[in-house]
Amino acid sequence: MKSGILKAEGFLRFFSLGLLALTACLVGLDAQTKEIFFSLERKATFRDLNALLALVYVDSIAAGYNLLQLSKCFFISGFNGNPTGSYKNLAWVFFFLDQMAAYVCFAANLAATQASLLAVTGASQFQWMKICNRYTRFCIQIGGALLCGLIASLVMAVISSISAFNLFRLYSSKQFLVLKGK
Amino acid sequence: MKSGILKAEGFLRFFSLGLLALTACLVGLDAQTKEIFFSLERKATFRDLNALLALVYVDSIAAGYNLLQLSKCFFISGFNGNPTGSYKNLAWVFFFLDQMAAYVCFAANLAATQASLLAVTGASQFQWMKICNRYTRFCIQIGGALLCGLIASLVMAVISSISAFNLFRLYSSKQFLVLKGK
Repeated sequence: MKSGILKAEGFLRFFSLGLLALTACLVGLDAQTKEIFFSLERKATFRDLNALLALVYVDSIAAGYNLLQLSKCFFISGFNGNPTGSYKNLAWVFFFLDQMAAYVCFAANLAATQASLLAVTGASQFQWMKICNRYTRFCIQIGGALLCGLIASLVMAVISSISAFNLFRLYSSKQFLVLKGK
Repeated sequence: MKSGILKAEGFLRFFSLGLLALTACLVGLDAQTKEIFFSLERKATFRDLNALLALVYVDSIAAGYNLLQLSKCFFISGFNGNPTGSYKNLAWVFFFLDQMAAYVCFAANLAATQASLLAVTGASQFQWMKICNRYTRFCIQIGGALLCGLIASLVMAVISSISAFNLFRLYSSKQFLVLKGK
């Protein structure tokens, strides 16, 4: 019998896993070729911007991490009521890993969003041209991918709150960092 | 008598308040003028990049938020052991506010870092020029400010963990979302 919170965590992890994989695929497979002169062609891919390259790697790794954690949701049948020893240590490890995963994933998505925003607006003071009026289809696909990625980041923030809940509920509400069982 | 966790929270809030204010000042007061032609001058300020403008606003607001929360650390003398009613609701509000502040602050600093990184490296595929070889002193000051801002973001992530601790320790370790006192 799985507990409700473990089911919720499993569902959220599955959801964010899907969104992260979708983001990585949408960005990684996006390409558009444009003719600049009569025979000279330029192909826009995600490798043109370092932020998009980083996004593909980070989101793939985060998807893999969520897959590993999903297997945990299948094999562990929930907290058995004894907040000592290995369960507590494991809860601390998951807490740190989930916090890190949430912030790193959020960071990668935001950096890519910022770089893409510059490609849409340009920066006239720096004479950086707009790119998206030339590679429109490419930019729309990137935009969709970034939306998926940001939703996945929000879901991972919720997951990190759940793992904080799983850890901190073990502690006494009256004394600082004293376990409840004691 | 203040509890240890409240003291730690107050210290961390004071620290991040100082760093956030420093970041906003360093970015906001940064300016460098360069001669382009014989009499034509160009002044680089934080208004040239939207991400830096957003950073100044967000970091100022986050510093103000931390100031408000600091006053809480002074006037509330800690959790009195009764996890019902107003204390629990307040803990939920602080939890959400702190999580939001941490992510928004992190987002603003990262977006500014990404945009500044593009100013350092340029993007040759898009014919975006490097800016920092011309406005070197300006860029170094921005770099220092971003470092302060990222440290402040990490401190705010720790603060949000503390407020998660303050909230979730109220709940039972055996049942889902059942208060301990019941």
